[in-house]
Amino acid sequence: MLLSTTEIRVRYAETDMMGVVYHANYFTWFEAARIQLLDELGLPYRELERRGYLLPVLECQAKFILPARFDDSLRVQVLIEELPVARIEARYEVQREEHTLATGRTTHAFMSPEGRIIRPPKEFSTKAFAAFDKTKGPI
Amino acid sequence: MLLSTTEIRVRYAETDMMGVVYHANYFTWFEAARIQLLDELGLPYRELERRGYLLPVLECQAKFILPARFDDSLRVQVLIEELPVARIEARYEVQREEHTLATGRTTHAFMSPEGRIIRPPKEFSTKAFAAFDKTKGPI
Amino acid sequence: MLLSTTEIRVRYAETDMMGVVYHANYFTWFEAARIQLLDELGLPYRELERRGYLLPVLECQAKFILPARFDDSLRVQVLIEELPVARIEARYEVQREEHTLATGRTTHAFMSPEGRIIRPPKEFSTKAFAAFDKTKGPI
Amino acid sequence: MLLSTTEIRVRYAETDMMGVVYHANYFTWFEAARIQLLDELGLPYRELERRGYLLPVLECQAKFILPARFDDSLRVQVLIEELPVARIEARYEVQREEHTLATGRTTHAFMSPEGRIIRPPKEFSTKAFAAFDKTKGPI
Repeated sequence: MLLSTTEIRVRYAETDMMGVVYHANYFTWFEAARIQLLDELGLPYRELERRGYLLPVLECQAKFILPARFDDSLRVQVLIEELPVARIEARYEVQREEHTLATGRTTHAFMSPEGRIIRPPKEFSTKAFAAFDKTKGPI
Repeated sequence: MLLSTTEIRVRYAETDMMGVVYHANYFTWFEAARIQLLDELGLPYRELERRGYLLPVLECQAKFILPARFDDSLRVQVLIEELPVARIEARYEVQREEHTLATGRTTHAFMSPEGRIIRPPKEFSTKAFAAFDKTKGPI
Repeated sequence: MLLSTTEIRVRYAETDMMGVVYHANYFTWFEAARIQLLDELGLPYRELERRGYLLPVLECQAKFILPARFDDSLRVQVLIEELPVARIEARYEVQREEHTLATGRTTHAFMSPEGRIIRPPKEFSTKAFAAFDKTKGPI
Repeated sequence: MLLSTTEIRVRYAETDMMGVVYHANYFTWFEAARIQLLDELGLPYRELERRGYLLPVLECQAKFILPARFDDSLRVQVLIEELPVARIEARYEVQREEHTLATGRTTHAFMSPEGRIIRPPKEFSTKAFAAFDKTKGPI
């Protein structure tokens, strides 16, 4: 299991005239959380792109429970439960204090700059495997 | 069945450094299509908000098949298959010429400005019902 | 003088919790107007980028007079007053019916993909020159 | 003089197909810096809006010197040089390490929810005055 938490402070630009955060903006927060998870894994996404590995979103989904508001201090948790092989599934939870505001999911695959689905870079698999191993429970 | 098609021309601001449209921006196109469907139904969303009916997104989902690119001329179809009662489910398809670039889905409920889920305005139900009736097939 | 007018319908995503359009979004409308001016000149921006000419924004400015609101039907006028040589200066006006909502200005230069300022493509200069000539007054 | 510095990490969503940050997004960073300056002054903007004081952008301007890129760690400095009376002028500088990437300026006035320009709240003037006083030099 890979897990990471990112702090987000809601920007005015992210709100809409309903007085709350516009739904599509949660996906940019999910991304911020993914980027940080990769950083913590020792594989900055910027570095992956430089080596010719893109990680586009194939599917995304979100469920909105309570509205996020301007200036809120939020935690965005991202969780990858299964060792990534061809596809990577990430799940998200947006929290304000003890409340869950939204949950979500994104699916990714590694892609070449030409748009072909490719195998993850070896270093990614190794590091992800090691990180998964570390978080394995006692049983 | 309610159905509407909106034309979208892709803006430079909607692309990202992958050279294609950033995934979250498809949701703003879905919204443009919903707004137009309500216009065609004779119930502009602006008018609904003025009367105290908000129509927030409770859930949203998208699947990306082929990338949309800057300056593309796209069609965004929105389809409401079931007569809306408490919840409204809309499905979307983003098309460029004969290709489907993405599909999606959003779920909505009518909400008061105070954030309570409320029944749809009577005029909405009447007009939606009439429009559904018109599109009913021969059997 | 080069002049073009683009129609914009304000998106919900473009509003903020003040109930009006978020100021930074006017710059994406200015861009839509520029793109259309280039189309009308017979030099689509997409085509220019394909040939290795980027046209980044070096400076931008806007003045907000009256707020634009969700669902407004706006006209965005763009005007290039001087024959573009090294730098291109474009001026903008956002109008709703007989009202001017905002004015603005952007400055551009042609740039190579490597980030060097370069001369405009010959075809651009020729077409811009011809278009300027056509709009010249009787004296 | 009021001065504040905010840290920004560039989001993927903020880039465009030129591979750099889309120009309009700098204005959302300017805003983040303003919000933090108000926080440091002891007058969170959220609080001001709650009391009926809006602080819309009347004018904005930016000059782009070097491109900001995905994942860059930036500093955004905001500076208010004159004691704000009817209008507030803020100046900005976006920095990456020792480089200045962009400079900018925004002009604001306090506005009532009905759209009338109003005097700043007394507490704002008092706190701004005190903060200015503190930063006054020896001569």
